[in-house]
Amino acid sequence: MRIPNHIGIIPDGNRRWAESKGFSKEKGYSLGGITPGLLLFKLCQKAGIKEITYYGFTTDNTKRPSIQKEAFVKACIDAVKILSKEDAELLVVGNTESKSFPKDLIPYTTRRVFGKGGIKVNFLVNYGWEWDLYNLKSSSNKTKSIIPTIHSNEISRIDLIIRWGGRRRLSGFLPVQSVYSDFYIVNDFWPDFKPEHFYDALNWYNDQDITLGG
Amino acid sequence: MRIPNHIGIIPDGNRRWAESKGFSKEKGYSLGGITPGLLLFKLCQKAGIKEITYYGFTTDNTKRPSIQKEAFVKACIDAVKILSKEDAELLVVGNTESKSFPKDLIPYTTRRVFGKGGIKVNFLVNYGWEWDLYNLKSSSNKTKSIIPTIHSNEISRIDLIIRWGGRRRLSGFLPVQSVYSDFYIVNDFWPDFKPEHFYDALNWYNDQDITLGG
Repeated sequence: MRIPNHIGIIPDGNRRWAESKGFSKEKGYSLGGITPGLLLFKLCQKAGIKEITYYGFTTDNTKRPSIQKEAFVKACIDAVKILSKEDAELLVVGNTESKSFPKDLIPYTTRRVFGKGGIKVNFLVNYGWEWDLYNLKSSSNKTKSIIPTIHSNEISRIDLIIRWGGRRRLSGFLPVQSVYSDFYIVNDFWPDFKPEHFYDALNWYNDQDITLGG
Repeated sequence: MRIPNHIGIIPDGNRRWAESKGFSKEKGYSLGGITPGLLLFKLCQKAGIKEITYYGFTTDNTKRPSIQKEAFVKACIDAVKILSKEDAELLVVGNTESKSFPKDLIPYTTRRVFGKGGIKVNFLVNYGWEWDLYNLKSSSNKTKSIIPTIHSNEISRIDLIIRWGGRRRLSGFLPVQSVYSDFYIVNDFWPDFKPEHFYDALNWYNDQDITLGG
């Protein structure tokens, strides 16, 4: 079986899940958002995936009501801390110059090895696609690749993006690393994560041809 | 009904279609690739779409065997010339400094109005996503939007991307304009285009919420 090196995770549907359960929207992050991230990490580790990138929150998201903002910021902090107890090499990428960037996560903005390391795990936290690309050098720069010049340059090309919550869009997720990615959509909400979602995505990916645009 | 302003078209599956019919691969472009483009244009015009972008060919594609390359370049030239007989405002975007850019299309690299104009039609010809972004200014540039700084800056944000041929990926298609786009996949090959594909995509799009990442 052909296993992707790098999986991007768009964990959407937390608010819709909360509403469907009769909770207020912000409860979706604390009650439903964190456990699936740890479960998925363990499945990736077992499957031999080399790198995972979680879409935490974006600068676009920070325009939401403050009760929601506090909830998803806290969920991101908790998720990073939980994974720092595993064997993983963690990196948080996002705009640290803005007030919305959680200070607790500053120590994670250079990659650090936890436990025995082995699998790279990236979290996009207060990430914005325009912020990411802003760093690009002008056309006088003759490097052959653009990736070294963007803010997220330590995140490699993504093979497979899995999005929960049924929407079929990137919503600003790493535009450069996702140019050739295959997209797999799970209709269930992220808090309803099941291992089958992951295995179905891997099976589907195994049937795709890889051309890198060629 | 909520109609997208701007539709991106990824007309994939020409070679697989040709093989399925017992033709050699390159025949897919000439025999199957052009008529669907005109049919789709007319449906867009009727539906009140304001802008369409066709993914013609990329710098990645030019690495294919020369018989295929000649065939898809000719199909692009023919498609632009056919649409220049309609009421449309045409623009060809791509790397004109490379030998692979067809000279016949140089006159279309600034937007021109044909007939009564009205609908913008963009063709990506010898387009490359890295080439597109290369023009980006360094982070010292404090403009609020990145779009004015890229090569494809005359192409607006895309609301809906329709891809034929079953693959679920962008393959380098306009990474900046597609950050918030909804993706609709048609399993049929592009030469098997049917009006239902377009109407099904519009109906699906009508049921999506639009958040622009918020």
